[in-house]
Amino acid sequence: MSPSTTRRNVLRGTLATTALAATPTVAARGGEAHAAPADGGAGPRIGILLYDGYSLLDPTGPAEVLSRLPNATVTMIAERRGAVRTDTADVAVVAERSLAEVDGLDVLLVPGGGNRGTLAAMRNHVLLRWIRAMHRRTRWTTSVCTGSLVLAAAGLLEGREATTYWASADYLQSTFDVTYLPRRYVRSGKIVTAAGVSAGVDMALYLASLITDDETAKAIQLAIEYDPQPPFDAGNASHAGPELRQRALESLAASQV
Amino acid sequence: MSPSTTRRNVLRGTLATTALAATPTVAARGGEAHAAPADGGAGPRIGILLYDGYSLLDPTGPAEVLSRLPNATVTMIAERRGAVRTDTADVAVVAERSLAEVDGLDVLLVPGGGNRGTLAAMRNHVLLRWIRAMHRRTRWTTSVCTGSLVLAAAGLLEGREATTYWASADYLQSTFDVTYLPRRYVRSGKIVTAAGVSAGVDMALYLASLITDDETAKAIQLAIEYDPQPPFDAGNASHAGPELRQRALESLAASQV
Repeated sequence: MSPSTTRRNVLRGTLATTALAATPTVAARGGEAHAAPADGGAGPRIGILLYDGYSLLDPTGPAEVLSRLPNATVTMIAERRGAVRTDTADVAVVAERSLAEVDGLDVLLVPGGGNRGTLAAMRNHVLLRWIRAMHRRTRWTTSVCTGSLVLAAAGLLEGREATTYWASADYLQSTFDVTYLPRRYVRSGKIVTAAGVSAGVDMALYLASLITDDETAKAIQLAIEYDPQPPFDAGNASHAGPELRQRALESLAASQV
Repeated sequence: MSPSTTRRNVLRGTLATTALAATPTVAARGGEAHAAPADGGAGPRIGILLYDGYSLLDPTGPAEVLSRLPNATVTMIAERRGAVRTDTADVAVVAERSLAEVDGLDVLLVPGGGNRGTLAAMRNHVLLRWIRAMHRRTRWTTSVCTGSLVLAAAGLLEGREATTYWASADYLQSTFDVTYLPRRYVRSGKIVTAAGVSAGVDMALYLASLITDDETAKAIQLAIEYDPQPPFDAGNASHAGPELRQRALESLAASQV
């Protein structure tokens, strides 16, 4: 009940921690401590756009992965600084920077959301203009779930192949000049789109390998123990019957505000 | 460029939304709109504990899943209300309730964190006392990653089987009277522990099936398109060589503050 944790380490990473803590990079990072992340730094500047009604895992899954990239800074960004609520309105993540405070990113990630949040983002010309401006200088412009509809509304997917949430594929193809591919993630030039919600984790590992190398991405995969074993095999819409699809959409509709 | 989204729906869930919106339950939920979640309600009250230095995906992966349970409320809880920073200090999630404001939960989830955050939580007697008090009346008490060390420090895992982050397994077994099982999640009575970080999503789907039924859990799995296809097969520590393990721990150590 009173474990002697003072002299012990809960991870077998004591030596690694000690060794790395002596390097200037990590010391500098430690020095920033609890400040909001800076826009500069030696590693990639990763910006994740939040808007009212996003789905929680869309930004947070990739953030978990990408924050482990060497010297990366991950910054949550929204029209205004402050708490931004998810589609269920239960949870809020803090936007550390407003759009106006960000003048360049190496990686932009646009998450998806429910109908309300996605449609509002697609119609928000301040947001779309900012996405276009960032995209001009990113190394990678990425999306998760219906985030690809927002990229499309910003005009970035013109004539490209992309993926999106399974239930939004028809809408994406019929509304924009985009070829939908039913894959976990799709790369088209410097744009990488991911399928629904949880696909952002797979996409982020792929992106990590593009930004660094396969060995670094594998180390991050092990660092987050990503050896998925869902208790059911129900996550692929192309294998699901109409009843399960309907139940899935009902569960989304009922949980969203 | 100017999609006519007004009369269209980005998800093929229009009919479902319309149909469900007429039921009292959903209407009530819609009425709460953007307010912080209430502690009451018709569905399960799910409380997720945040503490300084948790790992982002630990609480947010399960929150994404559990927030889709019928009429569920998911509430982020911490010692004090307000923003609580992750182990990398890049991201903060808002705690909507303080410990003192929560008098009962159907489901308690304790996330894991880096060394610093986990050790501080294990030594925080206010936190441990609260966890014990909640546990007395929960239907399910759960953890992700090193969150099981916090449950153990609270005395809840005495004589039980449990899992934890792969690199913390030795510590868990040598420090507490716990048998570590190298599984994605382990149920022992009403306690369910998950392996590292991303395992929380698998555990939450299992938990969803326990709280409701398999069909509901499957619908949630499809709702979040959880058909994992990581680009590498590197997430299982028991298949990883010592070099990859070392790199994974270094990537954690370097990214944490």
